[in-house]
Amino acid sequence: MAARIDLNSDMGESFGAWTMGHDESVLPYITSANVACGFHAGDPRVMARTVRLAKSHGVSVGAHPAFPDLVGFGRRNLAVTPEEAHTDVLYQIGALHAFCRAENIPLAHVKPHGQLNNLAVTDASLADAILDAIELYDRQLILIAYGGELLARGRARGLTVAQEVYVDRAYLPDGRLAPRSLPGAVIQDPSVAARRAVEMVLQHRVPTLDGQWLTVTPDTICIHGDNPGAVELARAVRRALDAAGVEVLPLGHWLRTHT
Amino acid sequence: MAARIDLNSDMGESFGAWTMGHDESVLPYITSANVACGFHAGDPRVMARTVRLAKSHGVSVGAHPAFPDLVGFGRRNLAVTPEEAHTDVLYQIGALHAFCRAENIPLAHVKPHGQLNNLAVTDASLADAILDAIELYDRQLILIAYGGELLARGRARGLTVAQEVYVDRAYLPDGRLAPRSLPGAVIQDPSVAARRAVEMVLQHRVPTLDGQWLTVTPDTICIHGDNPGAVELARAVRRALDAAGVEVLPLGHWLRTHT
Amino acid sequence: MAARIDLNSDMGESFGAWTMGHDESVLPYITSANVACGFHAGDPRVMARTVRLAKSHGVSVGAHPAFPDLVGFGRRNLAVTPEEAHTDVLYQIGALHAFCRAENIPLAHVKPHGQLNNLAVTDASLADAILDAIELYDRQLILIAYGGELLARGRARGLTVAQEVYVDRAYLPDGRLAPRSLPGAVIQDPSVAARRAVEMVLQHRVPTLDGQWLTVTPDTICIHGDNPGAVELARAVRRALDAAGVEVLPLGHWLRTHT
Amino acid sequence: MAARIDLNSDMGESFGAWTMGHDESVLPYITSANVACGFHAGDPRVMARTVRLAKSHGVSVGAHPAFPDLVGFGRRNLAVTPEEAHTDVLYQIGALHAFCRAENIPLAHVKPHGQLNNLAVTDASLADAILDAIELYDRQLILIAYGGELLARGRARGLTVAQEVYVDRAYLPDGRLAPRSLPGAVIQDPSVAARRAVEMVLQHRVPTLDGQWLTVTPDTICIHGDNPGAVELARAVRRALDAAGVEVLPLGHWLRTHT
Repeated sequence: MAARIDLNSDMGESFGAWTMGHDESVLPYITSANVACGFHAGDPRVMARTVRLAKSHGVSVGAHPAFPDLVGFGRRNLAVTPEEAHTDVLYQIGALHAFCRAENIPLAHVKPHGQLNNLAVTDASLADAILDAIELYDRQLILIAYGGELLARGRARGLTVAQEVYVDRAYLPDGRLAPRSLPGAVIQDPSVAARRAVEMVLQHRVPTLDGQWLTVTPDTICIHGDNPGAVELARAVRRALDAAGVEVLPLGHWLRTHT
Repeated sequence: MAARIDLNSDMGESFGAWTMGHDESVLPYITSANVACGFHAGDPRVMARTVRLAKSHGVSVGAHPAFPDLVGFGRRNLAVTPEEAHTDVLYQIGALHAFCRAENIPLAHVKPHGQLNNLAVTDASLADAILDAIELYDRQLILIAYGGELLARGRARGLTVAQEVYVDRAYLPDGRLAPRSLPGAVIQDPSVAARRAVEMVLQHRVPTLDGQWLTVTPDTICIHGDNPGAVELARAVRRALDAAGVEVLPLGHWLRTHT
Repeated sequence: MAARIDLNSDMGESFGAWTMGHDESVLPYITSANVACGFHAGDPRVMARTVRLAKSHGVSVGAHPAFPDLVGFGRRNLAVTPEEAHTDVLYQIGALHAFCRAENIPLAHVKPHGQLNNLAVTDASLADAILDAIELYDRQLILIAYGGELLARGRARGLTVAQEVYVDRAYLPDGRLAPRSLPGAVIQDPSVAARRAVEMVLQHRVPTLDGQWLTVTPDTICIHGDNPGAVELARAVRRALDAAGVEVLPLGHWLRTHT
Repeated sequence: MAARIDLNSDMGESFGAWTMGHDESVLPYITSANVACGFHAGDPRVMARTVRLAKSHGVSVGAHPAFPDLVGFGRRNLAVTPEEAHTDVLYQIGALHAFCRAENIPLAHVKPHGQLNNLAVTDASLADAILDAIELYDRQLILIAYGGELLARGRARGLTVAQEVYVDRAYLPDGRLAPRSLPGAVIQDPSVAARRAVEMVLQHRVPTLDGQWLTVTPDTICIHGDNPGAVELARAVRRALDAAGVEVLPLGHWLRTHT
């Protein structure tokens, strides 16, 4: 059986009169779109258009809920209670799902955005609040997580959790991403990123910044689309995976609960 | 067969640290709660609590979408395009539905709020935008409307539309509400309101301000809950209907599409 | 004495992570910056940077207040009361002035944005509400207006009002702008716009769409900066005015109250 | 010379259709109003009315800037950069000042709200960001602070800083407030609060929770007005201070820079 992988990208991050991202340029290469839900970016028109556009490319749609911080783009730590996180995530999942229903496509996954995502790696109660929202809404939703509490607790609950990796960021030996300030932390060469993607999927490993091997079992690769260079990188990654015989398919087509 | 009626009331209009309304005092008397969705009032915590509270009283839950105008409480005209109205309503329906799903109860109805509702009485394209959102989301949703384009076009589409009447406001001979500035336009005496309620339900008529009879065929009576006097009025109306042998039941238990 | 003119442009319309406009490219050619105040665009960081940037180019700073409609960019009609308009404008003037104080430069003018501006051309009570805010804040502030009630009532109060004209839009014989849908309504050729600018300033006339002459007495020319073509046009207009011996100076250096 | 004190209270915390606080009941007893600026509470109408009301009672007006978190009432930690804090505070000071200018009264002081205030006690860079905003806006503004970095750094810069104390909260021996969870931490008896107020002002001491004496040098006493009991307490404190011969006066009438 061929190796499989999903490629996900954040989408629909325009707002009102402001545009952001290169959604149309990236969609041909990816299989899952994480669509902003109005709290850090996106508005109802942007959401409707993004869902329609993803559908037209056969790309699965997921919710990309965030802290309620439009001016900060959801990138600032906000000390929310579990109840606040839980209800904010529920609200955003439902809001995005409405546009999927209008297009007659399923809501496939949830990937928390920005600091909501980052804090849930180490904050167990925040992770639980997010997981509660997913479970109460629909246990069939796939969670995209890159590690820590959110990933572990999601799997412990029997949810379908997709392990996410990055091909444009270097890793430390402990599995964390190398801080952007370190030399070599950000990978901009599309061919290097593409080689890493194939190696992660087929050989389950990635070289760390200090030259060791880190074992990885990726279900989905995060693809950025917020600058023209990122689009080139997305294309290179997709072509390399296709050429290597990897099946690039939305998570819902193949990912099963880890039991 | 006994006459039937639904009693609906706007609920969940608190926001953050601010409280509004007497939801807990009104819920024992009503059968449908129109829950604010965060655009004119309500926040995800308020929405979660309101849905839970309505469920505990056996009260059906509906969405109460509005113009995006928190500081104006959705009471100001905003010149939105049909696309803006359509997507804003879809977003709000989905967001509220999430809290119903979390409580394992259905989303039963939609009643537009404030000026979104008032303008849709005469603005056919706005009415269509609202109806598009309802149809695309779920054709089983009941629309509560008090007249005009929204009601007529909803019925023409084959949607289930509940005709709403007011027992605390006087009517003009043409069926419109008398402006609040007219003497007698606002009915504050609970016993008068209760008598009107029974007369509208059993005899399908209500006296107009100038002493004529207006024919009405109400499916649901709007009950206000925003002041202590309104709670007294709600109680009086409910008791009078019960005493008159009217079945006071949520719309979804009995209302059928008018064909 | 040489003819004088001011060139004004909307600035600081980025918000949070989103950028808009080509402020740095346009600033070398203009003399007055209308800075967004956070209601339709702009946030406190954008405001601070825009004021600093304008100062560094010797460009005067004014407030560009708008309806509270971020997602609609202040371009939608909102039915506000005079009290709402008055207090919303006061709030925004004060907020922007704070950044001028921090840079030790004066707040020079006020130009309402979008539909707040457009409605005040025909709505006398809205115009008065804006004028009340300006008068109560500082009678020395210059109002930039393009006509109608706002301009006439501002002058009737003895305020210093700058008459604004457009060089990239065609006029109708009655002085209104030709709707964008008419052929020839939008002027994109920089040399044509430049010729019109010089003709308006030196000969006080502009050809209308149907080939007549309209008399104009401009104090300031609106320069757009929201697309690369607009930057070219701004440069052409400035150079043509300079070449024609027109003094291009901020309004506060020369404009006097019309009495 | 008689002992002097200021009594300050948070005011103008209504928003849109929602009301909060008992401003009119508290104003007769206080001398400084900390007026919300729209980020955690307050809107331009509320701000205008609150400033007018304070003026009518001869009460000084100050800005009460907060984190941009309306739904959280500014009570949640938000990880802002110094630039964000600095510009957010500048914006809010300017916005409130506009309403003072419209009423022809000075803006007298600044007191940060909620978590912006609490974090600035221990976060030196946040304290500096707030102080930068005050200095750049107007070095004559008085800062109300209850301790820590904000107070110390404000005084080190030569700003006029008013030391604030609480009469309805118990103190720990190190000068911090006792957590509300401790028995006796909240003082609800108006006569006890009044006695503490007089003792703090005249004898510069207050008993700690464990029965020691803490030395205090208050310039202003914080008076709450958010519940009916608080109004009683405000009256009792004011009457006791008057009866003890303390001059209760706005800070600007007597407070001098500590040098």
